[in-house]
Amino acid sequence: MKRTFRLILEYDGAGFVGWQVQAEGTRTVQGELETAITRVCGAQVRVLGSGRTDAGVHAEGQVASVCVETEVPERRLRRALNGVLPDDLVVRDLKEVEESFDARRGAVSKLYRYSIWNGPQRSPLRASRALRLERPLDLVAVRRAAADLVGVHDFAAFQAAGSDVKTSVRELLRVDALGRSGATVDFYFEGTGFLRHMVRILVGTLIQVGSGRRAPDSIPGLLASRDRGQAGPTVPANGLTLLEVRYTPRGDPARSDANPQEKQALPLDSGSALRY
Amino acid sequence: MKRTFRLILEYDGAGFVGWQVQAEGTRTVQGELETAITRVCGAQVRVLGSGRTDAGVHAEGQVASVCVETEVPERRLRRALNGVLPDDLVVRDLKEVEESFDARRGAVSKLYRYSIWNGPQRSPLRASRALRLERPLDLVAVRRAAADLVGVHDFAAFQAAGSDVKTSVRELLRVDALGRSGATVDFYFEGTGFLRHMVRILVGTLIQVGSGRRAPDSIPGLLASRDRGQAGPTVPANGLTLLEVRYTPRGDPARSDANPQEKQALPLDSGSALRY
Repeated sequence: MKRTFRLILEYDGAGFVGWQVQAEGTRTVQGELETAITRVCGAQVRVLGSGRTDAGVHAEGQVASVCVETEVPERRLRRALNGVLPDDLVVRDLKEVEESFDARRGAVSKLYRYSIWNGPQRSPLRASRALRLERPLDLVAVRRAAADLVGVHDFAAFQAAGSDVKTSVRELLRVDALGRSGATVDFYFEGTGFLRHMVRILVGTLIQVGSGRRAPDSIPGLLASRDRGQAGPTVPANGLTLLEVRYTPRGDPARSDANPQEKQALPLDSGSALRY
Repeated sequence: MKRTFRLILEYDGAGFVGWQVQAEGTRTVQGELETAITRVCGAQVRVLGSGRTDAGVHAEGQVASVCVETEVPERRLRRALNGVLPDDLVVRDLKEVEESFDARRGAVSKLYRYSIWNGPQRSPLRASRALRLERPLDLVAVRRAAADLVGVHDFAAFQAAGSDVKTSVRELLRVDALGRSGATVDFYFEGTGFLRHMVRILVGTLIQVGSGRRAPDSIPGLLASRDRGQAGPTVPANGLTLLEVRYTPRGDPARSDANPQEKQALPLDSGSALRY
């Protein structure tokens, strides 16, 4: 019997060349997952992700869907997959969903975090998951600039050069920069969709604002320019984590059943779009 | 001119066989630090640590002292050392102190954290710094048992077999287990001194209490037994971090000057011994 499953995935991006299956011999999240499902269910499958994550980007709550012929109950299936998956990738949750569920098309919004270590020295214990900036960021200036990013805009200035998407219009629901335990600063971005490298270019630009190298009120002009050359640099991937993907109630029947222990405490966890 | 310095160190323990210099070809924190000082100051030196940390144990605030002939000002010396130290070791703070300062003898207490990931699945993003336990711990039971560990006791039951210290009497000032963001549980231990593997055996024993496999009121009997065989297992090193070493005001003249950004927010950061 063919059944459709929704998977919530956590992975350490350091060991992957990204989400999407690529040339033979490269290690991808999608590839490892498909191999594990084949081993457990004995069938070749295609796993759909909510979107691609780039090489080095981590996930605490990436969502994927797969349709596969199996009789194994959900819990046993999840355990069997985790038994064969490598250490840096885990299925946190697995639920049978209606046949029409598509992790990519059904996604309503995604929440990303970018972490910065703002201490006076580099930090060996944080280096693998955060960008180090020596000078403290002016978070008041950052938040002023961030407010102008919220809403529906053409984000052409914030996409990797050479992208060929149909439209670079996207909607950002929330952008914030929060200081946390000492000198860590976390940027949060929730949006209905993201262009290639968009979060990392947004962070690179907001860092310029927070360092006094770009005016807090310069965002509207930058958006209007649609010019990648005028935005900030693309910051490294290792500070970026896909925290959560949200679905419509219809597309996400299993959500309310999720183990509450697994629910990440999110400082921005309000249901509504937050403006400043 | 010979000057004495106090260094505060952060390191990722994964790449070291421990603090103390050992056989040729093994990578130790002490060894890397001595090599760096030799490169910067041109002199062979011996660095004294507040104590040894075992292979795999991390530090956010290990303290070391060194006496070396140099004219270089503190700030430049710190930067020069960090420029030649490997990525997994950093000097967070460096201050000139009085000649008599000895990082080991002057230490009044040490604060350790042991992190446990108590989620229903393993966690790739936490695996390198936390022990995974599948079943949630009963923290009320753990705290009841922990209260009996506070104070001056003979901790012979909680030391690695084969240790030959003069006395196994030590004083624990604070022991606590705190739930944090989702399914993470952090154990904190502050004491005037620790025996070999003591924190890790204490954690192994408290986990048994929190899992219902040992009575919360069994600690006094276990201490009285002085029998390593009756205590819990030694949990893995990778969950353990030396957070801070405290000194008497006399032994630590530089403390109040420390950059406030570097100060770790400690949930147990009260000056007095905490009983339950």
